[in-house]
Amino acid sequence: MIETPYLLFLGDAPDQLAAKVAIGIKDWRPENAVGQYRMDGCKADLGLTDMDLAEAKAAGAKTLVIGVANRGGVISQAWKKVLVTALEEGFDLASGLHNLLRDEPDLVAVAEATGRKLHDVRIPSVKYPIANGEKRTGKRCLAVGTDCSVGKMYTALAMDAEMRERGMKSTFRATGQTGILITGDGVPLDAVIADFMAGSIEWLTPDNEEDHWDLIEGQGSLFHVSYSGVTMALIHGGAPDALILCHEPTREHMRGLPGYKLPSLETLRDTALPLAHVANPDCKVVGVSVNTQHMSEEDARSYLAKIEAEMGLPATDPFRFGSGKLVDALAAF
Amino acid sequence: MIETPYLLFLGDAPDQLAAKVAIGIKDWRPENAVGQYRMDGCKADLGLTDMDLAEAKAAGAKTLVIGVANRGGVISQAWKKVLVTALEEGFDLASGLHNLLRDEPDLVAVAEATGRKLHDVRIPSVKYPIANGEKRTGKRCLAVGTDCSVGKMYTALAMDAEMRERGMKSTFRATGQTGILITGDGVPLDAVIADFMAGSIEWLTPDNEEDHWDLIEGQGSLFHVSYSGVTMALIHGGAPDALILCHEPTREHMRGLPGYKLPSLETLRDTALPLAHVANPDCKVVGVSVNTQHMSEEDARSYLAKIEAEMGLPATDPFRFGSGKLVDALAAF
Repeated sequence: MIETPYLLFLGDAPDQLAAKVAIGIKDWRPENAVGQYRMDGCKADLGLTDMDLAEAKAAGAKTLVIGVANRGGVISQAWKKVLVTALEEGFDLASGLHNLLRDEPDLVAVAEATGRKLHDVRIPSVKYPIANGEKRTGKRCLAVGTDCSVGKMYTALAMDAEMRERGMKSTFRATGQTGILITGDGVPLDAVIADFMAGSIEWLTPDNEEDHWDLIEGQGSLFHVSYSGVTMALIHGGAPDALILCHEPTREHMRGLPGYKLPSLETLRDTALPLAHVANPDCKVVGVSVNTQHMSEEDARSYLAKIEAEMGLPATDPFRFGSGKLVDALAAF
Repeated sequence: MIETPYLLFLGDAPDQLAAKVAIGIKDWRPENAVGQYRMDGCKADLGLTDMDLAEAKAAGAKTLVIGVANRGGVISQAWKKVLVTALEEGFDLASGLHNLLRDEPDLVAVAEATGRKLHDVRIPSVKYPIANGEKRTGKRCLAVGTDCSVGKMYTALAMDAEMRERGMKSTFRATGQTGILITGDGVPLDAVIADFMAGSIEWLTPDNEEDHWDLIEGQGSLFHVSYSGVTMALIHGGAPDALILCHEPTREHMRGLPGYKLPSLETLRDTALPLAHVANPDCKVVGVSVNTQHMSEEDARSYLAKIEAEMGLPATDPFRFGSGKLVDALAAF
C-alpha cells in the first residue's frame, strides 16, 4: 500500500506522452495528486501546481511518484539528486520503471538511513496463496479484450468513477503497474509466479458486501499467445459475475504479433464465457466497450449501434460517450 | 542442463512412495541411473546396485540426484553429511525439493569451494523470452487433461519411449520438476513469471526437423481454476500440432477443489481445440489417454471402447495397454 497523496515527478519528460502514468493518476485520482515536480527541460505539464519538495511536503504529500518513463532504462544522475533529496525530506518513493529503485545502491542506502520506503510496483510485495476456488461474497466485473491494449483499464476506471458518482459500491482493482500507482494498491499480475496467478486475484478481490462490485483491471487477451495465460488466471481467479467485452475495431493484427488476426466480439464472447462458467456458473456478458479513437464520431456511433443490434448488448466508448450504459447493466444485475 | 548419469539418493525414505522421483528416473531413463544410495533405515529400494560415493564415482556418476521427498521440509543433518561429502568427491547435486539446496549456506560454501553445481530444478535457471508466436519447424504434441494429475506426464513419457523404439524422432519436453530430473533438462513452468510462461515453452520446443515430435509434458487443466493459466500458456507457447486428451474416470471432483466437477472429454476437446487453433490453425485432437488404475481390466476395456465409439478417436491406458495407438496417430499425421 503506497501512502497518499502524491507529488508527481515528471523529471525531464521529453513530451506529454512520456508522463502517461502521471496523467492517469491526475485523471482518475486527482485527490491523490497535490502537485507536479518538473526539472529543467521538462516538456510535460499536467496543469497541476508546480512544487518543490518543501512545498509539496507542506501541502501534505507523502510519496514522490515517478510518473514518467525514463530514457534508455537508466535512472539518471539528474533524477537521482531529486530522489535522494526526497527521501531525506521524508517522502517515500514509488515507481513502475523496469529498472528498479531497489537496484540502485544509493537509493537503498538513503532509504534505510531515513526509514523511508521504496515501492517498485512491478514487483509483487505479497506472498500470494494458491487459488482455492471458493465462492466469495460480493460481485465482480472483469473486462476481457479481443487484444491487449484495447481499453480494458480505462473501461474499468471509467465504470468505477461513474458508479461512485451514482452512490453505488465499487472498487477498481488494479492488476498492472499504472493501475497500482493510480490507486496505491493492487497486484502486478504479469510479474507473479505462474502457480500463484489465480490466487493473487482471489486475494485482490476478497469477500465483500453483496451489492459491492470489484471492477477488475483486465490484462492481455485469451487470443494473444504471449499473455493468454495471464488472462485465463484473471478469469478463474476473479470468478467474475459480469464480463465486459473490449475491442478496437481498426486494429489490423494482434499487438506485436503481425501474423495473428483479432477475433470477432462474438468469438471472444463464445470463448470467454464458457471458461468463466468454470469458476462462476452465473457469469454473464453484460456489455461491450469499444475504443473508437481512430473513427469519426459518425462511424463510431454507427459501429456501436451495429454491435448493439447484432449482439443484443449495450455498447459504448466510455472515453467518448461515457460508461453509463455499462454501469446500467451492472445496476440491473 | 544436469550432468548425467546419476547416483540416485534415497536417503532415509520411509516407504517406496517417497522415492517417486527416483522411480521415475529409473523407469524412464535407466541409462541415467548407475546406482542407488541408501542410508540407514531407508525403506525404499529401486532394485539398483547399492553404491557408496566412491563406487558411484568409479561407475561414472556425475550428479547425486535427491530422488526422495524429505520430511517436514527440512534437509536433515544426516542428509547434509552425505551431500557435503558428495560435493567434495566431485558430484554435482540436483534436487526438486521445496526447500532449496541454494538456501543451505553449508552446501553453498562447499559447492563454491569445490566448483560443483547445485541444481534446484523448481527454480528457473534461464531468462526466458516473451513469446513471439512465430511458427517453428517440426511437430509438437501436448497432453491436456480434464484435471490435474490424470497421467499427462506418464502419457508423454510412454509415447516418447514407444516412438524411440519405432525409430521415430521424438523428444520428451519436461515442464515440471520430476520430468526435469528424469531428462536432466526442461522448464519448471509453475515457477516461471507470468509474462514469460508462453515464451518459456517456445524456448523449450525450438525449430526442429519436420518429422521430429516434441512431446510436451502437460500441466494443470483448463478446468482447474488454480492452474488454468499455466495450461493456457502451454497451449499457446507450445502451439501443438496434436493434442492428446487425458482423463481419470473415477475422480469425483477436481483435485483439491471439492466444489468443482470434472468436465467431460467432449467438453475438454471443444474447449482446448479452438484455443489451440489460435496458435496453430492445423492442430488436431488425435487420441485419448485414460488412467484406468481404479477400474477392473474388463471395465477399463469397455470404457475405452465406449470412448472410441463416442469420440471417433483412439483411446488407451498407456500404463496398462501401451501407448501404441497414440503413437500410431502421430505416425499417421
